[in-house]
Formats: sequence, C-alpha cells, structure tokens
Amino acid sequence: MKARVYVTLKPGVLDPQGKAIRKALTSLGFDGVEGVRQGKLIELELAETDPARARAAVKAMCEKLLANTVIETYAIEIDGQDAQGV
Amino acid sequence: MKARVYVTLKPGVLDPQGKAIRKALTSLGFDGVEGVRQGKLIELELAETDPARARAAVKAMCEKLLANTVIETYAIEIDGQDAQGV
Repeated sequence: MKARVYVTLKPGVLDPQGKAIRKALTSLGFDGVEGVRQGKLIELELAETDPARARAAVKAMCEKLLANTVIETYAIEIDGQDAQGV
Repeated sequence: MKARVYVTLKPGVLDPQGKAIRKALTSLGFDGVEGVRQGKLIELELAETDPARARAAVKAMCEKLLANTVIETYAIEIDGQDAQGV
C-alpha cells in the first residue's frame, strides 16, 4: 500500500528556501509570483494492507521522524484517498 | 491563485535520502516499510487568475527552474484541481 506525506512549514515560519526560489523565478522573468513555500513530499511503500492501520502507522512516523512538529505540519494521503492534515 | 508542484525523482534514479529515511524508520521500530522516496513540494501564490494560464506559467517554471527534468518528474495542481503530471 502506498502512502504520501506532505510536510510543510507552519504559517509564520520563515522559509528562506522558498524566498530564494521566488527571487530566482523573478530574475528568470516570471512575474506575478507573490509567494513561494517549499515543503517535502515523502512517498512510502508499506506492507500494511488496511488503510486505517496504514494511516495510523504513517501518523506515528510523522510524529517521530518525518516532520518536526514544532515548525512543520503534515498531511497524509493513503493510496489515492484524500489527504488528511493534523 | 494557488498552485502546488510535486517534484519527484524518476523511477530508477537512486534516492539516498529516501534510503536514509527508510533505515531510520526501521531502526525506530517501524516494520513493513518497503520503500521510501523523497520529493519536493513547492507551493506558489500567483497573481494570475486564469487556471489554464496559471498552469502554463507553472509548467514553464518547472522546466526552467523547479525540476531537473533529466532525473526528476513533476506534477502541477492548480487551486484544488487534480494534479497533472508530464
């Protein structure tokens, strides 16, 4: 079973990487880019076949390793189901 | 208008970061993780209001800057519309 985790910075947390991308886009001639935030996308291939148990396992992985919950928030998508944030 | 870009490594391209995450998950006691791939998630805030033109602009940004199309592939999602890959 496949799972996708989207890890993004919480609103208000500075994102220098996003700022750099925005600056680079502007210097390449892309106008009208008002903001850029960079996050992480983590794709997991799990042995678990039950969606509910897979989601619970991935949530635990996010809390323990994949996301820094002080400054980041995450959303989990299990095999095409809608992403659910926290 | 908001756009999200998902940049992932093409199949077959080695992903040492994903491998490291998998190893860390296993050492934390998460069994049954068969594979991990790490990608990037880029959220853009655009002045453009027409979805088709916004998508075309973001596609050009991906080709020029956001993705390394030799080893990476990307998918673009415009304001809640389904992601469309290349």
